[in-house]
Amino acid sequence: MNKCLITGFSGFVARHFIEYLENSGNNCIIKGLDFHNPDFRFDHYKNVKISFEKIDLLSSDQTKYIIHEFQPNHILHLASYSSVAYSWKEPVQSFLNNTNIYLNVLEAVRKLNMGCRILSVGSSEEYGEVYAEDLPLKEYSRLNPTSPYAVARISQEFLSKVYADGYGMDIVLTRSFNHIGTGQKDIFVVSSFAKQIAEIKKSGRKKGVISTGDLQIVRDFLDVRDVVRAYYLLLTQGKKGWSYNVCSGNGHSLQEVVDELASIAGIEISTKLNPALVRPADNRIIIGSNKRICDDLGWQPDISFQQSLKDILKYWELAV
Amino acid sequence: MNKCLITGFSGFVARHFIEYLENSGNNCIIKGLDFHNPDFRFDHYKNVKISFEKIDLLSSDQTKYIIHEFQPNHILHLASYSSVAYSWKEPVQSFLNNTNIYLNVLEAVRKLNMGCRILSVGSSEEYGEVYAEDLPLKEYSRLNPTSPYAVARISQEFLSKVYADGYGMDIVLTRSFNHIGTGQKDIFVVSSFAKQIAEIKKSGRKKGVISTGDLQIVRDFLDVRDVVRAYYLLLTQGKKGWSYNVCSGNGHSLQEVVDELASIAGIEISTKLNPALVRPADNRIIIGSNKRICDDLGWQPDISFQQSLKDILKYWELAV
Repeated sequence: MNKCLITGFSGFVARHFIEYLENSGNNCIIKGLDFHNPDFRFDHYKNVKISFEKIDLLSSDQTKYIIHEFQPNHILHLASYSSVAYSWKEPVQSFLNNTNIYLNVLEAVRKLNMGCRILSVGSSEEYGEVYAEDLPLKEYSRLNPTSPYAVARISQEFLSKVYADGYGMDIVLTRSFNHIGTGQKDIFVVSSFAKQIAEIKKSGRKKGVISTGDLQIVRDFLDVRDVVRAYYLLLTQGKKGWSYNVCSGNGHSLQEVVDELASIAGIEISTKLNPALVRPADNRIIIGSNKRICDDLGWQPDISFQQSLKDILKYWELAV
Repeated sequence: MNKCLITGFSGFVARHFIEYLENSGNNCIIKGLDFHNPDFRFDHYKNVKISFEKIDLLSSDQTKYIIHEFQPNHILHLASYSSVAYSWKEPVQSFLNNTNIYLNVLEAVRKLNMGCRILSVGSSEEYGEVYAEDLPLKEYSRLNPTSPYAVARISQEFLSKVYADGYGMDIVLTRSFNHIGTGQKDIFVVSSFAKQIAEIKKSGRKKGVISTGDLQIVRDFLDVRDVVRAYYLLLTQGKKGWSYNVCSGNGHSLQEVVDELASIAGIEISTKLNPALVRPADNRIIIGSNKRICDDLGWQPDISFQQSLKDILKYWELAV
C-alpha cells in the first residue's frame, strides 16, 4: 500500500487505521476526506504522510476531481451516516449519505478508469431480522433489512458486486459488526457505559447507577484495532468481489459489558433502564462467523474482550 | 378508487391504466406527473377526470407540495428509468431516477402523514441471474441482481418493506415481467419486430429481413392490459407489504415472437443478427409464477399471446 484515500477520515476507525499503518512501519501517503474536520492531530507520524481535505461526497464533481488529483492505489471507504436511529428520523439523508456518496466514489473511479482497489465497508445490520438457526451469521446468510440504514448498506453492497462483475472493478466488501475502542463517541453503547462508570469513579464514590437500554441484547464486539488490521489485510489481500464478515465470532450481553467494566473499575454498579434507549424492534442476538476472513487471510482477533474494555475505561478516566 | 396520483404518467403503461379505469366505468380523479409531457390526449374521457403536471421527482419539495395539494388515496408509482442498457451507461442517473425519486415519494407521504396506498412497481430484473431449478420464479426466490438498474429496483423494494413495517405505511409491491402492447416504444423487442414487419408489409413485399438480437432468449410476456388490471387490483385489494409477480406464467422465445408475427402478417420473414442488440450477460430464460396474485386477487391473464401480437402488429401498421 503506498497511496491510500480514506473517506470518513474524521471518524474513530480512520484514526486507528492510521495508527496501525504507522506502527507497522508502513510508508504510506494518505489523503483523508470528510465533511467535517478531524478532532485529532495527524502531523506527528513518522511513517505515514497525511493530508486532509474537507469535501461533501454528494458532489460528484468534487469527488472525481480529488480522486483524479490524488491517484490512490487503495480507497478505504469509511464515510457513512452509520446511525440506525438517525436513519429512522431522516431516511432520505441517511440514504444519500450512505448509498449515493458511495456510488459517487465508485463512479469517479470507473470514469477515471483507475485500477485502484476499493474496500466497501458494510454492516452486520444488513442481516436484519435473523433466526436462531442462522447464528453465527455467515456471509451467505439471508439479508433481511429492518431499517432504512440497513437498506442503504445492502444497496451499497449490491452496487459493489455489480461494479465488480459488470465493470471488472477491484472491490472488496465487508459486513462489519459492532466495533469498540478508544475514541468512539459515547452515543455507542460500550463508550456510554464506560464513560458513566469513569465519571462515578472520578467522583470517588464506591458505588453508582448508570443509565442503560435493554441489557439482555447480545452483540458481537470487536476491538477497533483488530478491525483496522482486518481492513488492511482486505485492502491488500482480500478476494475481489467477495464480502467478508469482520467480527469476533463471540457474543456478549450488554449486562456482561456492565459487569466487566464495573469489575475493572472496582466499583459497584447498578443499572437503571432508560426507555429512550430501548429500540422498538431490535434483534436479541447478533453473532457473526469470521471463518471466511480467518481462512482466506489468516486474520484472527488479537485483543480480548476484557483487554478492550480495560483500554476503553482507561481512555474515559482520562477524558471525563 | 377516487383520487389517484400516477407518476411516470407519460409512459405507455399509464395510458393503458387510464383506459382501463375509463372502460370499467370508474369515476376517478387522476393527477399525472412526469418530467416530460405526454404525447397522447387525455381530455376526451367521460369517467376519469385527468390533470397533468410536469415535475422532477428528484425535487423533494415539489414532490411533497403536489402530493399535499392533490391528497391522493392511491399512488401508482410508474416513474422509472427502466432501461437496463442505460443503467450500464449512466448508473448514477439510473439510480437517482429509480431509487431516489421513489424515496422522495415515500418520504412525502410519510411526512404528510397521509393514509394513501402506494403501488411500488418493481421488475423481474431483480431476480437477476437465475438457475433452471428456480423456474418459474416465485416471490420468495433469491434476488441476485446483475445490473445497476436491478440494484436500484431491489433498493426500492427493500425501502418499501421498511416503510411498510417500520412506519406502518400502506405499500404494495410488484415485480413486473416483460409488458407488451400498443404504444410501447420500438426500443423494446416486440415493438421493434412488429414495427419492422409492418414496414415490410406496407411496402407490399411478400418477404423481408428484420434485424434482431439473440432469438433463443425466452421471456415471460404479458399484455399491458392485463398488467394494468393487475395494478388496479393490487392498488385496491393487494396485501400491505407484500410483493407480487405480475406475469403470464408462460415463456416464449424471441424466435416464436418473430414466427407468430410473420404468420399474422402473412409474409415470409427471415432474421439478421445485429450484434449491437445482443447483451453481454443476459439470462437465457425468465419465467415467473403468478400463483400469488391469482390466488390472492382472483386475477388471471385474459389476453392471449397471439391476440397481443395481432393488436401490436395492427398498431404498427397504422403507425408506420
